Amino acid sequence: MTTPDYAMRNKAFNDSIVALDGSILTVTLNRAKQRNTFTEDLVKELIEVFTLADRDDRVRAVILTAEHTAPAYCSGADISGGWNRLWEPEAEKEGEHAHRDGGGTLSLAILNCRKITIAAVNGHAAGVGMTALQLPFDFRFVWEGAKLTFPFVRRGIVPEAVSTYLLPRLVGHSRASSLFLSGEVVSPNSPHINSLYHKILPNREDVYPAAKAFAQELALNTAQVSVAYTKGLMQHPGKNAEENHLLDSRAMKLLASSHDGTDGVQAFLEKRMPKFTDTLSKNSSPWYPWWRRLDVKHYKSKL
Amino acid sequence: MTTPDYAMRNKAFNDSIVALDGSILTVTLNRAKQRNTFTEDLVKELIEVFTLADRDDRVRAVILTAEHTAPAYCSGADISGGWNRLWEPEAEKEGEHAHRDGGGTLSLAILNCRKITIAAVNGHAAGVGMTALQLPFDFRFVWEGAKLTFPFVRRGIVPEAVSTYLLPRLVGHSRASSLFLSGEVVSPNSPHINSLYHKILPNREDVYPAAKAFAQELALNTAQVSVAYTKGLMQHPGKNAEENHLLDSRAMKLLASSHDGTDGVQAFLEKRMPKFTDTLSKNSSPWYPWWRRLDVKHYKSKL
Amino acid sequence: MTTPDYAMRNKAFNDSIVALDGSILTVTLNRAKQRNTFTEDLVKELIEVFTLADRDDRVRAVILTAEHTAPAYCSGADISGGWNRLWEPEAEKEGEHAHRDGGGTLSLAILNCRKITIAAVNGHAAGVGMTALQLPFDFRFVWEGAKLTFPFVRRGIVPEAVSTYLLPRLVGHSRASSLFLSGEVVSPNSPHINSLYHKILPNREDVYPAAKAFAQELALNTAQVSVAYTKGLMQHPGKNAEENHLLDSRAMKLLASSHDGTDGVQAFLEKRMPKFTDTLSKNSSPWYPWWRRLDVKHYKSKL
Repeated sequence: MTTPDYAMRNKAFNDSIVALDGSILTVTLNRAKQRNTFTEDLVKELIEVFTLADRDDRVRAVILTAEHTAPAYCSGADISGGWNRLWEPEAEKEGEHAHRDGGGTLSLAILNCRKITIAAVNGHAAGVGMTALQLPFDFRFVWEGAKLTFPFVRRGIVPEAVSTYLLPRLVGHSRASSLFLSGEVVSPNSPHINSLYHKILPNREDVYPAAKAFAQELALNTAQVSVAYTKGLMQHPGKNAEENHLLDSRAMKLLASSHDGTDGVQAFLEKRMPKFTDTLSKNSSPWYPWWRRLDVKHYKSKL
Repeated sequence: MTTPDYAMRNKAFNDSIVALDGSILTVTLNRAKQRNTFTEDLVKELIEVFTLADRDDRVRAVILTAEHTAPAYCSGADISGGWNRLWEPEAEKEGEHAHRDGGGTLSLAILNCRKITIAAVNGHAAGVGMTALQLPFDFRFVWEGAKLTFPFVRRGIVPEAVSTYLLPRLVGHSRASSLFLSGEVVSPNSPHINSLYHKILPNREDVYPAAKAFAQELALNTAQVSVAYTKGLMQHPGKNAEENHLLDSRAMKLLASSHDGTDGVQAFLEKRMPKFTDTLSKNSSPWYPWWRRLDVKHYKSKL
Repeated sequence: MTTPDYAMRNKAFNDSIVALDGSILTVTLNRAKQRNTFTEDLVKELIEVFTLADRDDRVRAVILTAEHTAPAYCSGADISGGWNRLWEPEAEKEGEHAHRDGGGTLSLAILNCRKITIAAVNGHAAGVGMTALQLPFDFRFVWEGAKLTFPFVRRGIVPEAVSTYLLPRLVGHSRASSLFLSGEVVSPNSPHINSLYHKILPNREDVYPAAKAFAQELALNTAQVSVAYTKGLMQHPGKNAEENHLLDSRAMKLLASSHDGTDGVQAFLEKRMPKFTDTLSKNSSPWYPWWRRLDVKHYKSKL
């Protein structure tokens, strides 16, 4: 692929701003005046960003954040035109099973991004601001004062964006049930939600810098292919312990024989920093990914 | 269906008392003198209550509780006649695979109830008082002073009532293993069990009122069909993220087009309370439930 | 089987020491000078110990520990000769899919041991010292001062030993992702890892004695077959609630009719200690195990 020019993207983007600094790609929501509510344009822009970042060997981590002075990180969907505004009219002709929720298509793009993903939640969050914009990420940093809520049952709809799959896995069914079925507003330190967060910070303005410093340290000291395979093993483990043993054995054999695996040992023995140079575009095995993805775009992909 | 008269039920019921107050159905265990131990009669009565509540559009939430002056919320199975007393003699003729544990049949009835379910645990709990009478519920409120235990390995038997499926999902395998394999007695604030509870209250007499006020607030501000579909998505998610995206997209399309979904948006935009009127008997799609239930009653349903 | 003589084993063992005290079998890592790093010999010795303990009716619990004066509980794999030293040369001829990670074969042996298993982590732990030597156990006791880390992405490899299957189930995907993808060093009280531990102790020298006293209490007051079936139900639950109901009903019927289940009730009613005498070699049903194990040894067991 040709190397993406993210600055060029910004000329076409309306609802987000993207910037590459070294190996860290930051996407900032750009609808502060509208409380960063979620739009069809934002879905398209973010899917493009996460798809590009997945393939761009230079990018080690993607951070999603908002301006820390915005009224919210994301207050949910832009429902100024009702829910229907969020739907593609053409897809709807084929019947109710043809609908593809915008938050969900974004969640899948984030889950499929093989780089480190971090949500830097420096403001209040509701609805899709809690689901697609937080749950599919590897790490979540949050402002201690954020008001957080999954209000779906209080709006007559359901939790979307793959959240009924993701949240119970992330924090257990007991906490997920409390959050989804009450629609309560909680703060990050609430026992109902605190295990969702990697780090809780007292000041809004410190959330993104903390996330970025964390990303930079990981970019420097972790291996790109290693991170991608580890994410794969967590998202697509064996169906039982034995199957997982076959999967992680094969991944281990491949990576331990690679340049990065070899240098990882050497660096440890020599008490020096490792020099990881393997990239996903050049050094990934044809065996990876070992799972098959369901094609959700095709209208026949109904259950 | 004809509208159930719960007061009439009480004439037939021995081991529980049922009362409908507005949209909240409360079932109170009625064997305080026997420490509310679990009987065949109780299984039948509770299955009837949860099945009626599931179908009765008036009921938004079911609360199970005990008298707060009882020696226990539920001290486990009534084993005054040995374990065998809990079994249906006729079912046993077909062989060991034909046995259906009473706690488990009740757990399934509670899981299958599409309304909000709350256990108000205002006293000590052991055995089936921890499993069937707590784990299948959406929310658990508990008295801080309650002594809680899963003593099965200390009685020569196994955790029943679907608990080996439910507890690890609710709190993770590490905590579930601690509780099941030690049979230890813990208090609600123990890190081994605290994530099981939505709310922990200092006084026994406050547990049921807190649960009821919570239920009333939810009844007022959440949508019936929305709650049922959300419970369905949590209990029967997709096998992977992509499948879940197809399921929640379809549920979202159905509900966002419904009266309640439409009014949910409008109310939010107009900053007023929503007026949810859709009911499960009139406004649920033929697509729901999207999962197939295994018929556990038939004696051929063996594994 | 003939009764194992564990003292005899010690003559053949290099990297561990095994001792039976009553019903408690203790295995102590014996490479303190090498920070108890993980070797091929250790894999073979531990697999032998857990396989023997599984079959030896006298053994109720197995504790794995280290000398509390050692520089670490286990600092990870012995990589003094690179990763390759950990591999069986003959297995490699068949191609990358034939590799079986040593940590994983040990994890499976520990998971398959039907007795109570306890890791007494009385020192620092890294890599396979966190995975195979902790995650497959029923209970983990740990020294408060231990430095703990899953450093795989910082070495160019992947988390092994079935850990990508086990850790998310034990503590949830949010915490597992924090630990695996950052490779951070945490202490047992960190919210990122504390739910992994049954007990956290302030002094190194108290970890093993606490684990042993705990094991002895369980050996005295729990039933052997009951523990084994409970472990089976947790590791191999039904695919859904209904299937689990069929499984736990059958296990309940079998055990409640057994000597131990009968005495468990009687002892409770008579307020005396139970006298559990059933053993796995004599009193387990042909129905157990109800699951099929994938044969991971055969080279055709590829995915």
